[in-house]
Amino acid sequence: VLSIFVVGHMRIQILSIGYELLIGRVVNTNASWLSAEATRRGHTVERIACVGDSESWIGSELDYSITSGAQIIITTGGLGPTFDDITAQAVAKALGRNLVLNEAAFTMVAKKYESLGLPLTPERRKMAELPEGSTPLENPVGTAPGFTLLHKGVRIVCLPGVPEEVKGMFLKHADTFLPQEGELFEQSVRVAGLPESTLAPLIAELVRKNPYVYIKSHPKGSEGESLIEVHVYTVSNNPRVRELCSSVAEKLRAEVVRIGGRVVD
Amino acid sequence: VLSIFVVGHMRIQILSIGYELLIGRVVNTNASWLSAEATRRGHTVERIACVGDSESWIGSELDYSITSGAQIIITTGGLGPTFDDITAQAVAKALGRNLVLNEAAFTMVAKKYESLGLPLTPERRKMAELPEGSTPLENPVGTAPGFTLLHKGVRIVCLPGVPEEVKGMFLKHADTFLPQEGELFEQSVRVAGLPESTLAPLIAELVRKNPYVYIKSHPKGSEGESLIEVHVYTVSNNPRVRELCSSVAEKLRAEVVRIGGRVVD
Repeated sequence: VLSIFVVGHMRIQILSIGYELLIGRVVNTNASWLSAEATRRGHTVERIACVGDSESWIGSELDYSITSGAQIIITTGGLGPTFDDITAQAVAKALGRNLVLNEAAFTMVAKKYESLGLPLTPERRKMAELPEGSTPLENPVGTAPGFTLLHKGVRIVCLPGVPEEVKGMFLKHADTFLPQEGELFEQSVRVAGLPESTLAPLIAELVRKNPYVYIKSHPKGSEGESLIEVHVYTVSNNPRVRELCSSVAEKLRAEVVRIGGRVVD
Repeated sequence: VLSIFVVGHMRIQILSIGYELLIGRVVNTNASWLSAEATRRGHTVERIACVGDSESWIGSELDYSITSGAQIIITTGGLGPTFDDITAQAVAKALGRNLVLNEAAFTMVAKKYESLGLPLTPERRKMAELPEGSTPLENPVGTAPGFTLLHKGVRIVCLPGVPEEVKGMFLKHADTFLPQEGELFEQSVRVAGLPESTLAPLIAELVRKNPYVYIKSHPKGSEGESLIEVHVYTVSNNPRVRELCSSVAEKLRAEVVRIGGRVVD
């Protein structure tokens, strides 16, 4: 509906894998962290999905993401040594590729276990079996390597599930697959004394007139004693778009006062 | 891959709606809370998706969920008065129904604003416009009613986005659309002194032999100084399945000790 971003961005979808997400044991902070990072870099996350450690559900999601226009698909989870870590094999199957022992990944895994003084069991070796044509991504925190591959023009990036490993691996490698294209530029307006439904038509009007600026209101109080935080933002390094963003926020402040509300800090 | 639950459950998909989820401003705690509640009641959440406030993305998700076998689709977000709250109209469009003023919903909304001493503007009236054939769900916390409808045998339930409203509305109405079918029964085994990759083949073996019990390991330490929490659980009120669950946990404890690990509290 809204044009959130100016040109230059990539369209991203995130696929979080793991039954623990579907039984509510784990809150999907990986997806929100990655979304914030991607947004900050000037890209658009269009969709987030979570499915269990199931080849068929993972495969369907990849198909759906590719069909719906994703340029980058980032998965999290399912790269470890346990029986239900099946992301690599599910990705291979979905893309019609073989699952093969990746030499570079094997070196990474072997080194890790050597430094830990632990033997290289079949379960550990499995972490180096990647879809054919993948490039492994070194894991600066844990043992399982991530990997990335290009499939029919779509970049697929598979990260682990442990949040510290997701962050470490993303920050180490993101410049190669998700370069900085722009930066989030944001203005906040906090409105008191007006219910959200009174503010709504005012915001709608500003949105209609400014397609390159995104506006979102977050009610913080109740409809009775209202406090609404309005974020006016864009992801662009273009000074004109940033100026526009500031002027929309200024206009909003003036309108709020005009209809009897207050702008607070 | 795994049969998590015994018979009696409903297959659920959750669709969280709102751009704030896609830019990482908001962590999707609604989905995890609903997943935990549904699991506790004996049902299976098979998939969670998040998309923006966009008719076409919401429509595609509903199609996908219905096609992939969801029996219940729960959406959150997009029911409020602002310009980008479009869930009702997106659901109506996706299902080929008209968006109509629902009398019962209108009464709910009118009462709320009367009690707040606020006029019924077009933006507020919009919250009572629901897909034809919907039953409104009273909102015990906020102003926007939720709604539910049955479409070709699939139950669709639309809840608000504010977490307190999701919880309040779900707990008030869930017995009608998601009755208690079983209860989560869980045994925890905390394992020290073994890396997850050593534990993996042992768990794989137990899973293979006990299809009605679900086992998930959560590494809490590092591969070097390992602490692994293993959850053995089922959702069933059947005493035999619960006994099986306990005996699997017992077997796991014995095996851990046999291969040189420790079971800790």
